Amino acid sequence: MNFCSHCGQPVTLRVPPGDHLPRYVCDGCGTIHYQNPKLVAGCIPEWEGKILICRRAIEPRRGFWTTPAGFMENNETLMAAAAREAVEEAEAHVEIGSLLAIFHALRAHQVHVFFRARLLEPKFGVGPESLEVKLVDEGGMPWEEIAFPSGVFALRRYFEDRAAGRDSVHFADSSVPVR
Amino acid sequence: MNFCSHCGQPVTLRVPPGDHLPRYVCDGCGTIHYQNPKLVAGCIPEWEGKILICRRAIEPRRGFWTTPAGFMENNETLMAAAAREAVEEAEAHVEIGSLLAIFHALRAHQVHVFFRARLLEPKFGVGPESLEVKLVDEGGMPWEEIAFPSGVFALRRYFEDRAAGRDSVHFADSSVPVR
Repeated sequence: MNFCSHCGQPVTLRVPPGDHLPRYVCDGCGTIHYQNPKLVAGCIPEWEGKILICRRAIEPRRGFWTTPAGFMENNETLMAAAAREAVEEAEAHVEIGSLLAIFHALRAHQVHVFFRARLLEPKFGVGPESLEVKLVDEGGMPWEEIAFPSGVFALRRYFEDRAAGRDSVHFADSSVPVR
Repeated sequence: MNFCSHCGQPVTLRVPPGDHLPRYVCDGCGTIHYQNPKLVAGCIPEWEGKILICRRAIEPRRGFWTTPAGFMENNETLMAAAAREAVEEAEAHVEIGSLLAIFHALRAHQVHVFFRARLLEPKFGVGPESLEVKLVDEGGMPWEEIAFPSGVFALRRYFEDRAAGRDSVHFADSSVPVR
């Protein structure tokens, strides 16, 4: 951030009075521009025991696999965002289920929220942000080619919980290697 | 948003190629400025059956009561943010427990995340953003003077779950009146 989005004057990084962290403060109009983590919403769509995954057509991690996920928009819920991403990336219609995992991607300034989901019918396609979309069973999961640690975390917990017959909520952050 | 925070030139609200929603796009350098919901993290700190609440010293809703909560910062987890807010608003040290509620404040472009929490000792004070801080039991909760619907939602579900001896996760959004 170099300029004030309100008035266009240069901003300075400094601790405002009464605050404890440096913020971008406008030298012109005085607006304080807070920077906060962005939410990413995703889901693990299942059909007859198999999971729908997408190979990324865009950077970062082009060519690697993910579950449908993307930045949450204003004016939507996390569940609506997760379902929307399944349509956009995999042309798949899902019913969003229980909350599965929250992963804090600290350096990326993101919070990734994953839900369990059910594919409503075995129909899907390759959205503009994907190179390939497919249903895989647990044994066929390309673990070494999953795009992000949050995806590995969500998928590992998904299969563990499914095997144990439970619906837990799991938390992790990027400061600890995903197991 | 009027100006590009990267180069300082004016921005225009338009749908970029390949997108489906209007974004602030810089006429100068082409940067697309996405607007996303902000995360608010809070907790319900309990001590011997009573709940710690704070009367707001700042707008919006100055003079109304809240549980400790505030905007999440970059480089912290939701749990760390919730614990930090308890220190800042109520000078209270808490142990964060299970996830309680996620409330989508749609028009405010915010997602509010609440955790159960335990006050580590019966010590608290009035932080700079509070007028008053106190422990109240369920019967003494000032329901008509709670600052935000998300707080009412989190507190109602907290007491229900505590009475039922369960630790559920609850979702709601601002399009439906809180009960």
